[in-house]
Amino acid sequence: MQPSASEPVGTGDLGVIIERATGKVAIINSSHMTILGEVAGLGDLSHASVVFSRDERYAFVFGRDGALSKVNILTRKLEARIMQAGNSIGGAMSQDGRYVAAQNYTPGGVKVFDARTLELVADIPAEYAPGKLSRVVGLVDAPNVGQGQRFVFSLFDADEVWIADVPGAGQPPRIQKITQVGHQPYDALISPEGRHYIAGLFGEDGLALIDLWSPQPKARKILSGYGRGQEPLPVYKMPHLRGWAVAGRHAYLPAIGRHEVLVVDTDTWQEIARIPVLGQPVFVMARPDGRQVWVNFAVPDYSRVQVIDTASRQVIRTLEPGKAVLHMEFSPRADQVWISSRDANLVSVIDPSSFDTLQTLSIDAPSGIFLTHRAGRIGF
Amino acid sequence: MQPSASEPVGTGDLGVIIERATGKVAIINSSHMTILGEVAGLGDLSHASVVFSRDERYAFVFGRDGALSKVNILTRKLEARIMQAGNSIGGAMSQDGRYVAAQNYTPGGVKVFDARTLELVADIPAEYAPGKLSRVVGLVDAPNVGQGQRFVFSLFDADEVWIADVPGAGQPPRIQKITQVGHQPYDALISPEGRHYIAGLFGEDGLALIDLWSPQPKARKILSGYGRGQEPLPVYKMPHLRGWAVAGRHAYLPAIGRHEVLVVDTDTWQEIARIPVLGQPVFVMARPDGRQVWVNFAVPDYSRVQVIDTASRQVIRTLEPGKAVLHMEFSPRADQVWISSRDANLVSVIDPSSFDTLQTLSIDAPSGIFLTHRAGRIGF
Repeated sequence: MQPSASEPVGTGDLGVIIERATGKVAIINSSHMTILGEVAGLGDLSHASVVFSRDERYAFVFGRDGALSKVNILTRKLEARIMQAGNSIGGAMSQDGRYVAAQNYTPGGVKVFDARTLELVADIPAEYAPGKLSRVVGLVDAPNVGQGQRFVFSLFDADEVWIADVPGAGQPPRIQKITQVGHQPYDALISPEGRHYIAGLFGEDGLALIDLWSPQPKARKILSGYGRGQEPLPVYKMPHLRGWAVAGRHAYLPAIGRHEVLVVDTDTWQEIARIPVLGQPVFVMARPDGRQVWVNFAVPDYSRVQVIDTASRQVIRTLEPGKAVLHMEFSPRADQVWISSRDANLVSVIDPSSFDTLQTLSIDAPSGIFLTHRAGRIGF
Repeated sequence: MQPSASEPVGTGDLGVIIERATGKVAIINSSHMTILGEVAGLGDLSHASVVFSRDERYAFVFGRDGALSKVNILTRKLEARIMQAGNSIGGAMSQDGRYVAAQNYTPGGVKVFDARTLELVADIPAEYAPGKLSRVVGLVDAPNVGQGQRFVFSLFDADEVWIADVPGAGQPPRIQKITQVGHQPYDALISPEGRHYIAGLFGEDGLALIDLWSPQPKARKILSGYGRGQEPLPVYKMPHLRGWAVAGRHAYLPAIGRHEVLVVDTDTWQEIARIPVLGQPVFVMARPDGRQVWVNFAVPDYSRVQVIDTASRQVIRTLEPGKAVLHMEFSPRADQVWISSRDANLVSVIDPSSFDTLQTLSIDAPSGIFLTHRAGRIGF
């Protein structure tokens, strides 16, 4: 029985799916595995990402075109939309839920907005030399240290990582700059507990690791055999660094250009194993209980998904949910994984313990899938 | 600005606080740090615990008197209440959110109910010898393995741990019995990712560890120096095993009867350090980012809280939030910790990065505090 429209509903089992071709998002219910409705008018969603408000009522959608849209997922209305930059590729929510931040290519920098009103709270141009603004990537929230809401981000053109503490409206943000982190950080992630910030390097082979718990954070080079720059293999799609998985003390990450998933010990940050897979991995996602890692692939293998058992480090299943698998999202207790197949106009809901397909939903060119439990996770 | 009553609200920032003396729960909003209302008529809440529905709309309250109450936290109404046993001390929510299970002393066993209707789905008497039913403790949900919804629990009177897979109404649960786990398991927990089930032993010194990923799970004795039975120190209050913290690869747990917190390596399950604290620890809770561990104490030190820095393994702060601190609950991104002080009739909200008190709320004899993000956590 679905509740009537007038009955107050919980938001713990809701989510949004990006419909990249039409500038819409679909609002979904994960308990009933249904589409509740759509919200249109969101512009260019070709590289869109989403964060949620602390109460899980609002989805903030970052569009490629520099727009920040605030969607009420209960009323399914677009409540606000601002063009905050010329070109943008994502954002982050502050730890306390008061601020939403956007990372921008044009002009290069980070803008921080009040999550309630979308008023500008702080403007942080990524000026690394007089008049020169860097493109900003890898923006994440991080746990505060008592000096305001903390964000961490990478400057692609400056080889720097900045840590910004934003005290609030009327007070300037404090910026710690970490220089010479490595050449051209192109994306980054923060570890699930919020301690380690890891930036991928486009201009050299390896990654930059920053321990945010350190009193004087600095960058350390790790995983020089990671792939980029080392091998002459063609790379069909640069994997997103956010497509990393951490399961127990091991991280699983896509080897760039190779048909392998790398296993890394998060104590030593050394590679300890490689797992062969059928193609070039793009997203490598851990089931929330760490028992499995699910992998999708670049062309030409982009219609398949492989499941790795983390205990044996073996591929135990190959699935073909539909053409052009772009994204996967687990429910927080791991009873479901949602998979978007763009060219099949299909979203599949799969039980990751039995591999049964629980539901399929027709959605126009689906890409990113975002469930509301992200509101309670550091770095999401 | 708080939304008007008619406007749909999110449930990601709601929670309930047990008012043990009056049989009520208070419904709170963590963003505004306010009490939204109370729900009365819940009976004996002296050892009450709460789980949430998958959509975060309902709180299921397990009373000491054997009652299971279903509270709608949006309408603040008691929607259903059943007396399901003579004496009960808690319960669990299935991975998929369809079932709510209660663990009972009298009669000894587990009952599984439909979370929507509270109809009985499965009755699992803990019969360990003809006509003999054991008291059941340490009931948790665990990730499924494709055979139905999984629960794990301990039989105090039988020295056994049972793993039950509940396929659903009309089909009997499958039970795996692990025997001779150690004498008198009195409470248990499941590790955050759902792999390890750990039962405390009342009848001997040590704990029973079960690796649920093993094809043939069995119990292994760990931490024989844990405290119980070894030392002649008086124990003022048996610590709850759920008052463990796992931060990174280390677990922090209360040493029984001693003024110490034990640090355990979760790879080897060996004790690696002891941290002196001011009294007998009861709850040892990790800040969600693992940077701190907060500890409360048994009488006579029960009005104080100590904060351990996990990097240095030192107490860095001692707080006195109010008389008789019974429980602590972190917001999921760690911007707040909520602390109940029963005899001060007070709940404090503290910023764990600055230690500032953000809010105090008058609540009648508060005990357990439960925020809705638990809906998305294995073992909660």
